[in-house]
Amino acid sequence: MVRINTNYQKLPGNYLFSGIAKKVADYSNAHPDKEIIRLGIGDVTQPLPSAVISALHKAVDEQAKASSFRGYAPDLGYEFLRNTIAQNDYISRGCDIKNDEIFISDGAKSDSGSIQELFDADTVIAVTDPVYPVYIDSNVMAGRCGTYDEASGKWSDIIYMPVTAENGFVPELPKKVPDLIYLCLPNNPTGTTLTKPQLQDLVDYANKNGSIIIYDAAYEAYITEEDVPHSIYECEGATNCAIEIRSFSKNAGFTGLRLGFTVIPSDIKVGGVSLKNMWARRHGTRFNGAPYIVQRAGEAVYSDEGKQGVKELISYYMNNAAIIRNGLKDKGYEVYGGVNAPYIWMKTPDNMTSWEFFDLLLEKANVVGTPGSGFGPSGEGYFRLTAFGTKENSERALKRIIF
Amino acid sequence: MVRINTNYQKLPGNYLFSGIAKKVADYSNAHPDKEIIRLGIGDVTQPLPSAVISALHKAVDEQAKASSFRGYAPDLGYEFLRNTIAQNDYISRGCDIKNDEIFISDGAKSDSGSIQELFDADTVIAVTDPVYPVYIDSNVMAGRCGTYDEASGKWSDIIYMPVTAENGFVPELPKKVPDLIYLCLPNNPTGTTLTKPQLQDLVDYANKNGSIIIYDAAYEAYITEEDVPHSIYECEGATNCAIEIRSFSKNAGFTGLRLGFTVIPSDIKVGGVSLKNMWARRHGTRFNGAPYIVQRAGEAVYSDEGKQGVKELISYYMNNAAIIRNGLKDKGYEVYGGVNAPYIWMKTPDNMTSWEFFDLLLEKANVVGTPGSGFGPSGEGYFRLTAFGTKENSERALKRIIF
Repeated sequence: MVRINTNYQKLPGNYLFSGIAKKVADYSNAHPDKEIIRLGIGDVTQPLPSAVISALHKAVDEQAKASSFRGYAPDLGYEFLRNTIAQNDYISRGCDIKNDEIFISDGAKSDSGSIQELFDADTVIAVTDPVYPVYIDSNVMAGRCGTYDEASGKWSDIIYMPVTAENGFVPELPKKVPDLIYLCLPNNPTGTTLTKPQLQDLVDYANKNGSIIIYDAAYEAYITEEDVPHSIYECEGATNCAIEIRSFSKNAGFTGLRLGFTVIPSDIKVGGVSLKNMWARRHGTRFNGAPYIVQRAGEAVYSDEGKQGVKELISYYMNNAAIIRNGLKDKGYEVYGGVNAPYIWMKTPDNMTSWEFFDLLLEKANVVGTPGSGFGPSGEGYFRLTAFGTKENSERALKRIIF
Repeated sequence: MVRINTNYQKLPGNYLFSGIAKKVADYSNAHPDKEIIRLGIGDVTQPLPSAVISALHKAVDEQAKASSFRGYAPDLGYEFLRNTIAQNDYISRGCDIKNDEIFISDGAKSDSGSIQELFDADTVIAVTDPVYPVYIDSNVMAGRCGTYDEASGKWSDIIYMPVTAENGFVPELPKKVPDLIYLCLPNNPTGTTLTKPQLQDLVDYANKNGSIIIYDAAYEAYITEEDVPHSIYECEGATNCAIEIRSFSKNAGFTGLRLGFTVIPSDIKVGGVSLKNMWARRHGTRFNGAPYIVQRAGEAVYSDEGKQGVKELISYYMNNAAIIRNGLKDKGYEVYGGVNAPYIWMKTPDNMTSWEFFDLLLEKANVVGTPGSGFGPSGEGYFRLTAFGTKENSERALKRIIF
C-alpha cells in the first residue's frame, strides 16, 4: 500500500505567496469596486528590454526553419550563454569562474529549491531570519528541519541567524556549526546587504568549519554601494565553499520568461566528491534545459543594448524604491533596505503584528505588501514593500498610507 | 561537516543519453571526415508548426509593452492553457478531467523525475523492463531501489515487469505488490502499446492493491490503432489511482521549447491526503511556472491550424518509422514498434549485445542508435532507432545498414 511523503504535512499552511494571493483574491471578490495596488510579491511590471524582444523574435524565426531548428538544449546550457555569463558576471569582476562551472536553469527558485538534494538527509541548515521561504520549505519537504513550533514560528533543527535592526542586519556567526548556510544578498526580504569584509567572515567561517554556503544573488543588479560584493566569489576562498545562484528575473524582467543559473566551482569537494559533477548528473536526469529562445534572450541581456535596457529598468525600480523609502520616512516610519535592493523593509506602526498591518493596509489603503513574519520569526513586526510596481502606483500607494 | 547524498554514488555511469553523446563526440573527433546520422536520442528535427511560431511572436510582442506584459505565471499554469487541455485531451475523449487537475510544467522529463517526491522514502516502485531511465534514476537519487547489481543490471528493490518479444510486450501483473507502477505507453523504448483491456487490467490491479500508476503518455499522438487508449483515464477507475504525464515535445516539436503537464485527479487520496494538493504545494514551492510565451505556444497547438501542423509532423515522422521498420524487415531483421510510436525496436543480429551492435553501427555505418540494454536488462539484445530524423537520413541510414 502506497504511502505519502509525510514531510509535506509538517509544512504550516500554504507557500507564503500562494497564501497571500488567495487572501487578496478573496478581498477583491468581496469588494469588486476597490482598486488594489500590489506591492507584495517581487514581480516586475515593466516590459522586457528591446534587445531581449529582438533576440526572442530572431530565435523564434530560427525555430521555424528546419535548417536552424534546435531541439533539446545541451543538458547544462548552451555554450554561447555560459561563456557570456562567465565573461560578464565573473571574469570581468576578477572572479575565477569558468563556463563549465555555470549551469543554466529555468530560474533561481527552481535551483534554490533543488540544491538541497545533493546533500545528506541529516544535513543541518542555517538560514538568516527572516529569509526567502523556499530554502526552508524545500528542506522540510525533504525531511530535514525537525518539527515546527507554531508559538515560536521556528523549526526545531534549523539554525536561525537573526538579521534585525538591533544587529544592523548582519548575521552572527553560528555557534553550532551548520552543514549548509543559505544566504540571500542583497537580502530578500530586508533589502539589506553585507560589506565585503562582513561576507568574507562568513566565507572564512564556512571554510574553517567545512560548511557549504548557498549564495542567492538574485538581486545583485540593484547594488549601488561600492563596498558591497556582487558575487560571493569576490571573497577569498569562496570557490572552495560557495555555490552561487543567479536570476534573470529581477535585472532583465524575466519573471515570466524563466531563466537563471547556478555556479558550482570545480574546487568544491565534499568527502572527495565533486558537487559540480553531482549537479551535472542531476541536470541530466531531472531537467531538460531552458528553452533555446529564452537562452538567446539571456544572451541578449549582456549585449550593449541589453545592458542599457537593464540599466534603465533598474533605475526605474530604484526610483520607486526611493519614493517609497523616503515617503515612508517622511511619514515617520522606521525604514530599511531600498538602497541596494528593490525591497523596502519597514517596522509596523504601533507594535502591530505583521499580519495585522497586512490586513489594515489591504482593507484601509487597498495596498498589498508582504507580512514580515511570513519570512521567519524575526520578521515579526516588519513589513515588506517592493519597488517593482509602476512609478504611478508607488506614489499612489504612498498617498494611501495615511496611518 | 557537510555530507553528500550518497545515493548519487550508487548510480552506475552517466545518464544514458549523456553517455551516448560523449561516445559519439569522441568518435566524431577521432574521425572528423565521417558524417554521422543520429537516430539515437528521441529529439525531433522538424521546425515548429506555423501556428506555434505565430503564437510565439504574438506573445513576445505582448511582453514588449507594459500594458500587456506578464510576469510570474500562475503557479499551476495559465487558465487558458489548462482549459484548452481539459477540453481537447480529455473531455472530448470522454475522460472526466477538470482544468484544476491539470498542472502545467516545463516538460514531462521534469515531472516524471519529480513525482516520486510525493511518496514515502520506502516506496517500492515497479517499472516495465526496458524503460525510460528517468523513472529509476530519480528514485535511486532519492534513496530508493536498494543496490545495483552489475551482473544482472538490476536494482535489488525494484520490481521489474519484463516486456519482450516472448510476452508480446505485455507486462505481467506483479506478484509482489508495488507502491508505484511506472508505465510509458506508447512505450519508450520498445514502441509497443497495450490495448484498452490490457491497460484496464493494470488499472484494476492498482485499485485492488492500493498502488498508484504513473502513466507517461508522451507519445500518445503517434497512436494509429483504434483499440489503443490515448489516455489512461479512458479506463474505468483510473481517476482513483493514476497520474498521467504529457508532453508537447513529441507531438508539436517542443523539445527545445519545454512544455508538458501532469494530471492528478482530485479523487486520488493516499492515507486520506490529496496527491493533487501535495503536487500543488510542490509546484508553488519548487517551480515558478512555464514561460508565458511558451504556454501561449502550447495553446496554439490546439487551434485548428495547430492541429493540422501536428498532424503533418506526426505523418512525417511516422513515414520515417515505416521506412525504417519496413527497410529493416526487408533486410531480415526482427522488428517491433513503429506502428503506434516513433520508435523502432529491433533484435540485434547474430546474438550481439546491444552495445556491440551500437559500436558496430557507429563505426561501420556511422549511424547512432540507442543500445537496448541502456533501458534495462530485458533490453539486452535489442536496439532502438528513432523516426525523428529527416526522411533523407532515415533512408540513408537504412542503406548503410548492410550487415
